[in-house]
Amino acid sequence: MSSFYGKNIRISIFGQSHSPAIGVTADGLPAGFAPDLERLGNFMARRAPGSHDFSTKRKETDEFTILSGMKNDTLCGAPFAAEIQNKDTRSKDYSQLKDCPRPGHADYTAEIKYKGFQDEAGGGHFSGRLTAPLCLIGGICIQLLEQEGIHIGSHISSIENIRDIPFDAVNLSGDDFISLRSQILPVLDSGCSEKMADAILAAGSGGDSVGGIIECGITGLPAGIGDPMFEGMENRIASIIFGIPAIKGIEFGAGFASASMKGSQNNDSFIIKDGKVRTGTNNHGGILGGITTGMPLIFRVAVKPTPSVFLPQQSVSLASGEEKTLQIKGRHDPCIVPRAVPCVEAAAAIAVYDAFLDYKKYL
Amino acid sequence: MSSFYGKNIRISIFGQSHSPAIGVTADGLPAGFAPDLERLGNFMARRAPGSHDFSTKRKETDEFTILSGMKNDTLCGAPFAAEIQNKDTRSKDYSQLKDCPRPGHADYTAEIKYKGFQDEAGGGHFSGRLTAPLCLIGGICIQLLEQEGIHIGSHISSIENIRDIPFDAVNLSGDDFISLRSQILPVLDSGCSEKMADAILAAGSGGDSVGGIIECGITGLPAGIGDPMFEGMENRIASIIFGIPAIKGIEFGAGFASASMKGSQNNDSFIIKDGKVRTGTNNHGGILGGITTGMPLIFRVAVKPTPSVFLPQQSVSLASGEEKTLQIKGRHDPCIVPRAVPCVEAAAAIAVYDAFLDYKKYL
Amino acid sequence: MSSFYGKNIRISIFGQSHSPAIGVTADGLPAGFAPDLERLGNFMARRAPGSHDFSTKRKETDEFTILSGMKNDTLCGAPFAAEIQNKDTRSKDYSQLKDCPRPGHADYTAEIKYKGFQDEAGGGHFSGRLTAPLCLIGGICIQLLEQEGIHIGSHISSIENIRDIPFDAVNLSGDDFISLRSQILPVLDSGCSEKMADAILAAGSGGDSVGGIIECGITGLPAGIGDPMFEGMENRIASIIFGIPAIKGIEFGAGFASASMKGSQNNDSFIIKDGKVRTGTNNHGGILGGITTGMPLIFRVAVKPTPSVFLPQQSVSLASGEEKTLQIKGRHDPCIVPRAVPCVEAAAAIAVYDAFLDYKKYL
Amino acid sequence: MSSFYGKNIRISIFGQSHSPAIGVTADGLPAGFAPDLERLGNFMARRAPGSHDFSTKRKETDEFTILSGMKNDTLCGAPFAAEIQNKDTRSKDYSQLKDCPRPGHADYTAEIKYKGFQDEAGGGHFSGRLTAPLCLIGGICIQLLEQEGIHIGSHISSIENIRDIPFDAVNLSGDDFISLRSQILPVLDSGCSEKMADAILAAGSGGDSVGGIIECGITGLPAGIGDPMFEGMENRIASIIFGIPAIKGIEFGAGFASASMKGSQNNDSFIIKDGKVRTGTNNHGGILGGITTGMPLIFRVAVKPTPSVFLPQQSVSLASGEEKTLQIKGRHDPCIVPRAVPCVEAAAAIAVYDAFLDYKKYL
Repeated sequence: MSSFYGKNIRISIFGQSHSPAIGVTADGLPAGFAPDLERLGNFMARRAPGSHDFSTKRKETDEFTILSGMKNDTLCGAPFAAEIQNKDTRSKDYSQLKDCPRPGHADYTAEIKYKGFQDEAGGGHFSGRLTAPLCLIGGICIQLLEQEGIHIGSHISSIENIRDIPFDAVNLSGDDFISLRSQILPVLDSGCSEKMADAILAAGSGGDSVGGIIECGITGLPAGIGDPMFEGMENRIASIIFGIPAIKGIEFGAGFASASMKGSQNNDSFIIKDGKVRTGTNNHGGILGGITTGMPLIFRVAVKPTPSVFLPQQSVSLASGEEKTLQIKGRHDPCIVPRAVPCVEAAAAIAVYDAFLDYKKYL
Repeated sequence: MSSFYGKNIRISIFGQSHSPAIGVTADGLPAGFAPDLERLGNFMARRAPGSHDFSTKRKETDEFTILSGMKNDTLCGAPFAAEIQNKDTRSKDYSQLKDCPRPGHADYTAEIKYKGFQDEAGGGHFSGRLTAPLCLIGGICIQLLEQEGIHIGSHISSIENIRDIPFDAVNLSGDDFISLRSQILPVLDSGCSEKMADAILAAGSGGDSVGGIIECGITGLPAGIGDPMFEGMENRIASIIFGIPAIKGIEFGAGFASASMKGSQNNDSFIIKDGKVRTGTNNHGGILGGITTGMPLIFRVAVKPTPSVFLPQQSVSLASGEEKTLQIKGRHDPCIVPRAVPCVEAAAAIAVYDAFLDYKKYL
Repeated sequence: MSSFYGKNIRISIFGQSHSPAIGVTADGLPAGFAPDLERLGNFMARRAPGSHDFSTKRKETDEFTILSGMKNDTLCGAPFAAEIQNKDTRSKDYSQLKDCPRPGHADYTAEIKYKGFQDEAGGGHFSGRLTAPLCLIGGICIQLLEQEGIHIGSHISSIENIRDIPFDAVNLSGDDFISLRSQILPVLDSGCSEKMADAILAAGSGGDSVGGIIECGITGLPAGIGDPMFEGMENRIASIIFGIPAIKGIEFGAGFASASMKGSQNNDSFIIKDGKVRTGTNNHGGILGGITTGMPLIFRVAVKPTPSVFLPQQSVSLASGEEKTLQIKGRHDPCIVPRAVPCVEAAAAIAVYDAFLDYKKYL
Repeated sequence: MSSFYGKNIRISIFGQSHSPAIGVTADGLPAGFAPDLERLGNFMARRAPGSHDFSTKRKETDEFTILSGMKNDTLCGAPFAAEIQNKDTRSKDYSQLKDCPRPGHADYTAEIKYKGFQDEAGGGHFSGRLTAPLCLIGGICIQLLEQEGIHIGSHISSIENIRDIPFDAVNLSGDDFISLRSQILPVLDSGCSEKMADAILAAGSGGDSVGGIIECGITGLPAGIGDPMFEGMENRIASIIFGIPAIKGIEFGAGFASASMKGSQNNDSFIIKDGKVRTGTNNHGGILGGITTGMPLIFRVAVKPTPSVFLPQQSVSLASGEEKTLQIKGRHDPCIVPRAVPCVEAAAAIAVYDAFLDYKKYL
């Protein structure tokens, strides 16, 4: 029953969509680091709803209060804790969910698992709102990694069937991420941005939704981070990434495409560049044997379309055992991919910083 | 630095390709269960090399010795430990790997991480041989799950560009797995088996290799197994699956395909079937909110082509800092997908049994 | 850097003495249980300061706000989180602690560990105040255990050199704890209560402090809880108990006294009583091989005298490297043993409930 | 059900008294360190039986085979694994233990916990023999710590009622341990050695046994190792120490004696010595707030008398539910304290090295 993650930094995320507050505790952050709180707020704003046309109209300001772990705005070594109060709650909207589970949501599984005692309002602990504290702590880890010269960025690889060009996995640098962070729909090929927007708005106006793929890159990683077998970088990243609701797949480097390649094609030659060992291509996604190679770490995640659609859907009454038609009301994003982008970066940052601390033990 | 996995059953895998032995310890297996050791041997034989034309000619019998945890062939509650002795070792083959890392292997990352002290022979701890103890303990978990009515099976979804038909994700049953277990290239559409074999042999004869995709299904899971966020079934399975060398991607249910669907299309309607709550389709892959729905759990993994190819490759001399051509010799599988099939089942069984024990705590 | 505990219920305690709030998150509490919040408040009041003559005059109401994990006052399966706001803070009192560490406190070790960035006010994260959230979550575990017929209670075994009689380790029952909970100085021999009070007041009026020993008993445990080696009941209890500041020793059953016994004297004969296997004596303290025997679990902890004494003490200036005399001011308990009693019960309850969940997995 | 310990180095101990082998795996040992295997053997010989008059006559050579984790006798970064084969087994001795549990042993609790499936021969997994692999891995940690200038040693503080003098907790140095390591009964006051020997032999010849207290010291620890609350040095050490069978209590620094001191007496003044911050006395045992102060870390453990005594004892028949007299036969130590000394050092070394790796992450 776990909203805990990590070995060196141990994170606990709490809250339900309509509980008094949501938040996060984090043990193991280094004393002496002063996070840029304004930048952290800007990072969290990329996830927050209500900021653009593709997002729910709910106004959640996601303003957080730091409860502990800081002194004079500097990490003091004590566990970090912060909360975000839940203000814009409309509990009455959710009265029917206990009986008639929404397709694609956790209503049914929560009902079974928690024997009817779950907090169904707004999806409870399963709400996408719980990614706000994830971004809060991940945003701090992003800043901690930057101190080490490690940068994380991502773009929308696709929305429905509209595809952006991929990252240059060989030459990717931290500077490539800067402009992405200010785009509502962060893409590399600016031409696809409008098409993506159209696809989202079209789905939304039809009472439907769309999904997409996010590609994430991490630059500046020294070779040697990560561990064999079950603590490889793939394992570590995947085990936190699937904590973001709606993510149904992850691939590293060439990923699923490597399955139809020849070995001679998929293998990345080692070369010397500027006196350093590098690879000429980057199908391995910066990871061999679970361990970073020093090349950019590249992965992609599949985000399913928002399960909250306004078209009538088939469901069942758990009480009567009869099938019935469900009509969802309320305020929902026709596409959560744009808001999932910072969540993916936050999750990756937590995993990478945790692995980085393991790496430091043996220096 | 971790070859540990698990919370309720805690697994430790040890060994190098050419160390005196490889093996596994497992804490938390239930006292009183008598594994069918002959069946376990048969399961491990599916992974062992040398059994068919697509595999290396090395003869590793993978015969294991149980060191502890049993009394009269029954689990006794003490930690289980077993070893497989390494017999057919040819250490001289690997003398050049320390200086000139093989593309696609962990030679370079191990050199950096372990500062030159790694055991490079045969890939050391990164060798695919370490999946033998994984299959050993996973094979026991498969039998433990069967006691609960839970069955695991898989087929080769693709080799290079040759594709099998997918599992019937709605009606899949444990019986569907039986015939798959006796096929060298387990597929649902028998027509593709020969084409896959041809593709593998063609790659091998050309000194090259091919990869593929494995689809795994788990039936009989009650609804309610798995936990929110970081201990969802996706997280748990992914975090062990990436411990299998060469796996570069995983997707659950519709996975990456869901990213180009509409929500109305991807959502699975709830229905009543035989008096039980089920879904009409199974794009969710049996998992909602990280928790099993009672529908078959379905996932696919991408296996990259064997990095050991016999064509000349570009690499570097770490000592001299110069690029050089590498020619790999020895005995290698032109395609490891067939042997990876039981490894995927084993890893999934460990993850699911561990989650199942968490589930039992609250019954 | 860890304020995390537990395997099945995972607890994270946060806060500093003078941070905006202190609190706790707990993952893994069972859905459907409705804690008696009034009783929980009464339990926490036993720890709170200001309630009697032996305690600091600070008024910390320790009123908590539940942030998540509940629905209609019932645990809902989502992580539990609660906070206690810090109101009565006087930060100016602590200005000199950064330079001149108090003997017996963590001022010096925190300065070194956190490189001067620690929050020194009131002892920061090392303050005894952090036992309030421990009692909050432990108080819930006490109620959960009572549902299983397991009861926890304790008495003050000694203050300075004044000794209470020990628990009847063979016949101890949950009813024996009831009257102890309402005593300010909970003792079995009412005659020693006044002497203990005198000793505390005498120490306090002399600017000094006294310590003591607490004996804790746990009844109703079925045989079979706990695990061999590092997850034995002794290990589990000790590893949380030392999280209470000022505890410097723990012993189970006859403990240190067993070291001067003969084996024939220390061994507890097995007998049949009311048709059940019991032991005639209980030197083993209810634990053999790390596992409960079904007899009362008994342990004692040593609580050092409050390090905050008002007599002049020798310390050093970390800045100048010179020795200097330190005079502590402010409000401090001359003896923390009475307030430590519920903390010991809370910590034990968490450890036992966590072990109980492991036990349930194999039923 | 756990024979696992550790966070940075993760240890798994396996085996039963009469299983084919016992052994240990350890993940996280640093690549590049070459343990002195002869010295390791000598360390393990201090624990091995049969070497002196106070020990069982069983001949267990405790010769170990390293299965993995080494290359050319140097740690290579892969998980370390070693086994000790069980040769001198006499399984027929133990036939009656399943029905009639020995007082003071885990026979009864194992029967209940494992539902009759436990391996009762020789105590199974609960046998003191399982401390051999603990000493194996602890012996390596001792050598690793010495590389950092950290030394561990211990002496017998008491046998029955015969007491040695205590360590000089202020001036203790690593050199003080050298002569202790070569004594069969390691004591500081050579005059008590013969009296202890007499007490042991007297107990043995009377068919009885005696216990004692071991004092352990750790020198050379820098200030700042250990963490607040549940990962303090006391918690870490206690949670592994209770994995040694027969240990029933632990105290740090003044421990239980501090409970009858005044605060002014128990507090250790800070002083400057040779330009460094030290304390004038060491009642705190080198730990404040869970974190090392740079003073010697001192703790004592209570070892109960060997439960295997040859005098007739009362027990029960689990089958018939009747009380019966039990007469233990075989070969047993009249006092296990001498052989427990290296076990305590080994366990402490593992805990300290694990904490040291956490410390290194933040340097």
